[in-house]
Amino acid sequence: VHAEFLTSLTGIAGTENVLHAPEDCWNYGYDNSRQHALPEAVVFPEDPQQIQAIVRLCNESNLPLVTRGRGTGTAGACVPLHAGLVLSTERMNNIIRADPGDRLMEVEPGVTNQEVQQRAAADNLFWAPDPTSASVCSVGGNLACNAAGPRAVKYGTSRENVLGLEAVTGTGDIIHTGVYTTKGVVGYDLTRLIIGSEGTLAVITRAILKLLPQPESKHTVQAFYSDIQSAAKAVVAIMRQPVTPCALEFIDGNAIELVRDHSDLVIPANTGAMLMIEVDGRADTINLESGRILEAARNEGLLEYRIATNDAENREIWAVRKALSPALRDIAPKKINEDVVVPVSRIPELIEGLDALGREYGIRIVNFGHAGNGNIHVNLLIDPDDPAQMQNSHECLMQVFRLVIRLNGTLSGEHGIGFVKRDYTSLEIDPQTMQLMRNIKSQFDPNNILNPGKLFPADTDS
Amino acid sequence: VHAEFLTSLTGIAGTENVLHAPEDCWNYGYDNSRQHALPEAVVFPEDPQQIQAIVRLCNESNLPLVTRGRGTGTAGACVPLHAGLVLSTERMNNIIRADPGDRLMEVEPGVTNQEVQQRAAADNLFWAPDPTSASVCSVGGNLACNAAGPRAVKYGTSRENVLGLEAVTGTGDIIHTGVYTTKGVVGYDLTRLIIGSEGTLAVITRAILKLLPQPESKHTVQAFYSDIQSAAKAVVAIMRQPVTPCALEFIDGNAIELVRDHSDLVIPANTGAMLMIEVDGRADTINLESGRILEAARNEGLLEYRIATNDAENREIWAVRKALSPALRDIAPKKINEDVVVPVSRIPELIEGLDALGREYGIRIVNFGHAGNGNIHVNLLIDPDDPAQMQNSHECLMQVFRLVIRLNGTLSGEHGIGFVKRDYTSLEIDPQTMQLMRNIKSQFDPNNILNPGKLFPADTDS
Repeated sequence: VHAEFLTSLTGIAGTENVLHAPEDCWNYGYDNSRQHALPEAVVFPEDPQQIQAIVRLCNESNLPLVTRGRGTGTAGACVPLHAGLVLSTERMNNIIRADPGDRLMEVEPGVTNQEVQQRAAADNLFWAPDPTSASVCSVGGNLACNAAGPRAVKYGTSRENVLGLEAVTGTGDIIHTGVYTTKGVVGYDLTRLIIGSEGTLAVITRAILKLLPQPESKHTVQAFYSDIQSAAKAVVAIMRQPVTPCALEFIDGNAIELVRDHSDLVIPANTGAMLMIEVDGRADTINLESGRILEAARNEGLLEYRIATNDAENREIWAVRKALSPALRDIAPKKINEDVVVPVSRIPELIEGLDALGREYGIRIVNFGHAGNGNIHVNLLIDPDDPAQMQNSHECLMQVFRLVIRLNGTLSGEHGIGFVKRDYTSLEIDPQTMQLMRNIKSQFDPNNILNPGKLFPADTDS
Repeated sequence: VHAEFLTSLTGIAGTENVLHAPEDCWNYGYDNSRQHALPEAVVFPEDPQQIQAIVRLCNESNLPLVTRGRGTGTAGACVPLHAGLVLSTERMNNIIRADPGDRLMEVEPGVTNQEVQQRAAADNLFWAPDPTSASVCSVGGNLACNAAGPRAVKYGTSRENVLGLEAVTGTGDIIHTGVYTTKGVVGYDLTRLIIGSEGTLAVITRAILKLLPQPESKHTVQAFYSDIQSAAKAVVAIMRQPVTPCALEFIDGNAIELVRDHSDLVIPANTGAMLMIEVDGRADTINLESGRILEAARNEGLLEYRIATNDAENREIWAVRKALSPALRDIAPKKINEDVVVPVSRIPELIEGLDALGREYGIRIVNFGHAGNGNIHVNLLIDPDDPAQMQNSHECLMQVFRLVIRLNGTLSGEHGIGFVKRDYTSLEIDPQTMQLMRNIKSQFDPNNILNPGKLFPADTDS
């Protein structure tokens, strides 16, 4: 960047809020996709007016502006591919207003998910989105990628749990979307258009979060099945009765083998798939509710089940799931982790198809995830020392995505597109719809300043 | 319309699917706003390709195209203000696919809400939106105005209960939005952008509806309060505990007086406000759940309550609510009915403010509605024979809306804008945001063919 740009930038945000030495900027160039690109400068604005001025400055200088929460995304959405300026929201981290009577909280984008949960818990409330990175990730980042997590099966994703936004568009206009209420039909729904847009439409400067009453207690059921068909049958049965679990997680046979090999956890022999089902509710009805879940979970393929009714037992049950990630890291540090979604009834076809692709391409594939939403984390355990596998992985991944689309699924349930998946989105979105999205983007950001090179396939870049 | 246009239109849709004689078109010119404008022709397309050709024809002829469901809207959204062509979806009324295992149903836009409910009920499922007109209104119309109803307090509005759409834009492109799954973050959320856009962006040709498991039983609590403050306090308390009711309806003191005068229903003396609270759930827990609701409903202002645990008792309790509409029609056939929303804790301020405005302008105002969402139906009982009232009503309405905005509310919770409320929307939406909505509209519909003169204020018409 030119010295003139830096002078203007420090004029807007103050010297203490600007980094430009490469060694200082370095940390703001990566995210959890393990991709990296060095930004030319980093700015830490403190209010929407500063952001407005920064956006206008970037327009004048034709410099890319990449908004960054805490860099926990896995799709590279906040990696500054084309260099330019990184706008970090970490110093806009105030809870503006907690309003328990109206079950809402107004926050700046840099507040972490955990800070929201802690503040809400003081009033016996919670905010639904619960990504794995909740302790560090920011609300702004959560909204940029429509973050979810296990609880989404009962409580929905970010989109269902935000009432309104303040944001600065790519033209530097400060806009206000949505309402302070749980209903509202005045004008177009720009709130949900901006949520999930990965910083390509606007910089979120304030969010009105919808809160929910905390449940009083929790039961967890762990159910082992002989095969994936039986587990999937149980998932459908559970989702068809009126007690919706607050988590309905699935681990496939390959993942179970891995846990068995890398931990001393006791897992029944012949287990082909496992479910972990969490039910939350009121203290006086939770027994009846977990009983109903067990009833739905029971079928001829159920080998064994355990039920946890207190915190210690709960932790023991989740140990299997928690043992999985280190085991995966151990044996495949270069694994490719996708988060595809299929309708729940198609989960067996997905898993069988993935097994077949694994055999065809000589790549070990293990699967687990949020079965209640059909959101399966597909892990291709690539061996970086095997040149054949490295070569096959791209083609294999393409076949995985084709399979998902054939099953009426979608390429991503919560991780987003960023640039890691951008060239696959044409498999899912037809050219007319893609062009319309491009046109909408051009109304928010005519000079393509905001996060260029993300979300849209490279071959549609103008 | 020119003969040439009619020839092209019948060429596209068939003679049997086109009306052009004014006496035949007449019925397609009104809706439940009691406004009327005569369309130049009416077409009943049978598939998306016909709609595509019709949209292109209207572009070539520069003729407005107004999509119409069953005309049950109250804001004039489907009244063909600028004449042109009315596109009725009533012959696209097929349920394409019911998939109970994945809890979804794919339908054409002309299917009625009731037909969806009946088909879903066969699998013990339901679709959440339950507008008063459910027995006749179409799904397409429900989505155009983001229809809701009492159940929205627990299950959400149309936006939260649709997975994806097929639609024809104002340029004649067939687009596909959303997914077949309950999660998905690929591309921008065009589904929710189109829902609630009142036919100004695209013609919906197919919808993927998200279904929910039917509850097994229902209890209804009727609670009489001495004053509005106590009733509002109960609403906040009910919404803060973990049993969310499936309806939380409110009737103010003025409305109660009306019911008392026009029916033989027994209502406690000194009743200043009433709540009707419906709880649904499973047979084995419903008693505990309605008990918890009662606990939250109880405060020093509670005069008396009744609880209904079977259908006959339920009907008796709802009789008070049902007596209200005929009473209102009797005494004020020209009433103005709004559906404003405020945060639930602000309901007392709203009702007090409305009482003050009623006194100031000499207009009787009665209020009832969906208190759990803060969505209050405000009825201005205008006497058409009183010239002073008629003159005052516009100014009074403006003051009502200003009050709502001051309380952080929104002008409409479910009825929409149409043209009846278009000139008030600037009170709620700032100029930058409004201009952005206009710009988005221009990408879907550059020639402003689709439902011109609706949703946006007249002074922003280009």
